[in-house]
Amino acid sequence: MQIIRSVKEMQQLMLELGKENRIGFVATMGYFHEGHISLMKESVKENDKTVTSIFVNPLQFGANEDLERYPQDLENDKRVAEEVGVDILFIPEATDMYPTKMTFEIIAKQRTNVMCGKTRPGHFEGVATVLIKLFNIVRPDRTYFGSKDAQQASIVQAFIHELNFPIELVILPIVRETDGLAKSSRNINLTTQERQEAVWIHKSLEYGRQFVVDGEFIPAMIVQEVINMIHEKTSGTVDYVELLSYPELEPVINTGNQFILAAAVHFSQARLIDNLIIDSEGNKTR
Amino acid sequence: MQIIRSVKEMQQLMLELGKENRIGFVATMGYFHEGHISLMKESVKENDKTVTSIFVNPLQFGANEDLERYPQDLENDKRVAEEVGVDILFIPEATDMYPTKMTFEIIAKQRTNVMCGKTRPGHFEGVATVLIKLFNIVRPDRTYFGSKDAQQASIVQAFIHELNFPIELVILPIVRETDGLAKSSRNINLTTQERQEAVWIHKSLEYGRQFVVDGEFIPAMIVQEVINMIHEKTSGTVDYVELLSYPELEPVINTGNQFILAAAVHFSQARLIDNLIIDSEGNKTR
Repeated sequence: MQIIRSVKEMQQLMLELGKENRIGFVATMGYFHEGHISLMKESVKENDKTVTSIFVNPLQFGANEDLERYPQDLENDKRVAEEVGVDILFIPEATDMYPTKMTFEIIAKQRTNVMCGKTRPGHFEGVATVLIKLFNIVRPDRTYFGSKDAQQASIVQAFIHELNFPIELVILPIVRETDGLAKSSRNINLTTQERQEAVWIHKSLEYGRQFVVDGEFIPAMIVQEVINMIHEKTSGTVDYVELLSYPELEPVINTGNQFILAAAVHFSQARLIDNLIIDSEGNKTR
Repeated sequence: MQIIRSVKEMQQLMLELGKENRIGFVATMGYFHEGHISLMKESVKENDKTVTSIFVNPLQFGANEDLERYPQDLENDKRVAEEVGVDILFIPEATDMYPTKMTFEIIAKQRTNVMCGKTRPGHFEGVATVLIKLFNIVRPDRTYFGSKDAQQASIVQAFIHELNFPIELVILPIVRETDGLAKSSRNINLTTQERQEAVWIHKSLEYGRQFVVDGEFIPAMIVQEVINMIHEKTSGTVDYVELLSYPELEPVINTGNQFILAAAVHFSQARLIDNLIIDSEGNKTR
């Protein structure tokens, strides 16, 4: 496995490699868990070469967010990437990714004013900006994202389409612990007590989904039921529970094909997210 | 010469062609004059394949601008492109370039609040958006722009750099009529009288440059002298005359290396622009 830190070197290498190889790309912030591994494995299976980037993108963190606290374990990440079969690990420096003050800003007029976007102004614009840059550096044929960050996947889908990136977006299911908690780099910041409670995020979403299965597709009621259950069963504070069309992330109108029931919950040192993507009968579609 | 109208077909073709050919790209709005021809010729000379696009981009025209009046002569353009040696002429439809309402907006925080950007809000954002799309469809190695749209070239330079497009930007000198008037598709909309007067845009800029040559680098004074001369010698109305650093397009501070002295003048049915790019001694650098 090659490890590359220079943006320029990476871009030169990929321009050459891309001529004769199908390139799969997994963009990450590191601290790999099984969610990341599932993305890398799928890419290794489907492409000639797999590139994984590790970059904790300052542009997507707000002033009061956990940029400094974001967990890192580069040695383990290298070992894992090598084992999984990643060909190139790209670990750029922030000063190399943002050498000058940006003249251009990417603004998203839709899909960002709901869910995580409501409390993280500029977050998804920061995500879109760094991904546009990474896509231009890596030039992948396919890129892999997880369903846990469903809003991110929705936004990546939109800008790939609208800006004509010739990249196939592959979205893989959420990887869960055996008790159902969605895997996340941030789970490490839960206390033992919180870790036990956290399973109720997923359980509460499943409880909400059951209303749809039972033919009671009443978004406001379902959202309130899920909020109540999370507050009853955990010490966390609900940031949001929302039921929206997917991938448009707009208020549910019964003509939609897919919907997302999503939650974000604050614990003492970690904010966790989870979701279910369902059809109008409540069947899980991912 | 191949003529392609479908975005999808174009992108597929270029993904293949780009593997074994250096691709040169000239983005235009059509109605070719010698300015366009100089760009295409240079591209044909320097690359294996040259792509020219003709697309009158609605996103860069304001509500009261001349989108409807923008001149077209597709048959002549095809003939010219073929003669010059263009390999692929890409002529997409607006509905194919913008099939859905855009979620994403490209905002430029610098370089756009001066010169043409002052009176054309959103213009350069529209230019940047369509060029990002075209760059992703065509995937050129080099792209060619003229100096006449110096602000556009400055903005293209900025977003290629900031968004890491692996594209070399080549900027060619302004092509002028024998009397000095900068070639433009819009010159056709001048009356005979205005056509005679219009040469004074260039002459007035040269008059302004002479102050710098003579060691009198006093921007406010030079700008006023140029405005006065244009108003004296033409029936046009000055939209702006500005003397700025180049390519940053910021107020002149004497440490800059290059500067732009630029003018825009309204005639009855055409708004013309012109500029000189100079060093601190007043020597033309382009």
